[in-house]
Amino acid sequence: MQVIPPALEELISQFARLPGIGKKTATRLALNILRKPPALAQDLAKALSGLHESIQLCSCCFSFSESDPCTICGDPRRQANTVCVVEQSGDLLAIEKTDIFRGHYHILHGVLSPMDGIGPDEIKIRELLARIRSGTVNEIIIATSSTVPGEATASYLTDIISKESVKLTRLACGIPMGMDIKYADKYTLAKAIEARSPAK
Amino acid sequence: MQVIPPALEELISQFARLPGIGKKTATRLALNILRKPPALAQDLAKALSGLHESIQLCSCCFSFSESDPCTICGDPRRQANTVCVVEQSGDLLAIEKTDIFRGHYHILHGVLSPMDGIGPDEIKIRELLARIRSGTVNEIIIATSSTVPGEATASYLTDIISKESVKLTRLACGIPMGMDIKYADKYTLAKAIEARSPAK
Repeated sequence: MQVIPPALEELISQFARLPGIGKKTATRLALNILRKPPALAQDLAKALSGLHESIQLCSCCFSFSESDPCTICGDPRRQANTVCVVEQSGDLLAIEKTDIFRGHYHILHGVLSPMDGIGPDEIKIRELLARIRSGTVNEIIIATSSTVPGEATASYLTDIISKESVKLTRLACGIPMGMDIKYADKYTLAKAIEARSPAK
Repeated sequence: MQVIPPALEELISQFARLPGIGKKTATRLALNILRKPPALAQDLAKALSGLHESIQLCSCCFSFSESDPCTICGDPRRQANTVCVVEQSGDLLAIEKTDIFRGHYHILHGVLSPMDGIGPDEIKIRELLARIRSGTVNEIIIATSSTVPGEATASYLTDIISKESVKLTRLACGIPMGMDIKYADKYTLAKAIEARSPAK
């Protein structure tokens, strides 16, 4: 018997298509929206429909933006000669939050993953090389995640970019701030020892 | 500086209005939708806009339904004389999944919570009394949660319903199935000892 009304069932299955949202969370969200005034549902629906229309990729760094170039690439106060290479837009947002990096970005839109058929041509590596060869870049900072595919991508990028005349750096690995050393996993701890720096 | 495009920011803040979704999860969801083909966003938007239009409250049990009476109240195979009283529609769905209850429901749409200004008139208690007094009900099963407000609501309902000529029962409390006794909290264990039943 159909206990859940079809319109509710439809919303539940649409929510369940989102990453990290299972059937149970989807049901909780949908029921909550149903209990609230219709305005919430309408506002969310509007934000969703308008999303892809107004957002495109910046032709320089490939971040999501409503303008081309994006606000970062178009900002004359930022250093265009330092380019931080990240996997996804979420990584850009995380780095921007630190308020410490004043250069430009390059979004790869993925990592190398041969098992899933994602090779160098499937992510924005060719575009990165073109950017380097245009001669406007002094330093490339590789800021892929320290996961297995992230490391593999970093090492591939290191291989090909080291042939170009550009400074190449990577984010430091080590103990997270505020972490008790005895709770750090041994790989992180090993990295931290290896990459130790003079005490100041 | 506006790093996040306004259309994306709008979707993030709409997602963040949902329960259990903070700014970080909202950002992750919105970025993921942006990376996927526009069809996903459109389908979700459509499901949201259509939700409140097609769903109403059943005038008998107050569950969300596309028809009135709802599929449960309108099903002649179910026992209309046994009514299970739950807090919210989600509880109804959980009980329906057990496939063991064949009676009707009554959704309170909340629990008593004087601190939040929710008294007996704010939830569907008057409607429950009217249903009992109509003479069609033999048994009322109180199935509110075993939380503080759930217990308070149950005890209020017990007080007023025990004056009516109807059998009144509550869900059993005790050790969850599959749980090791040494991990049960002492209140649950105390309840389980108190409510012990003859071994079969």
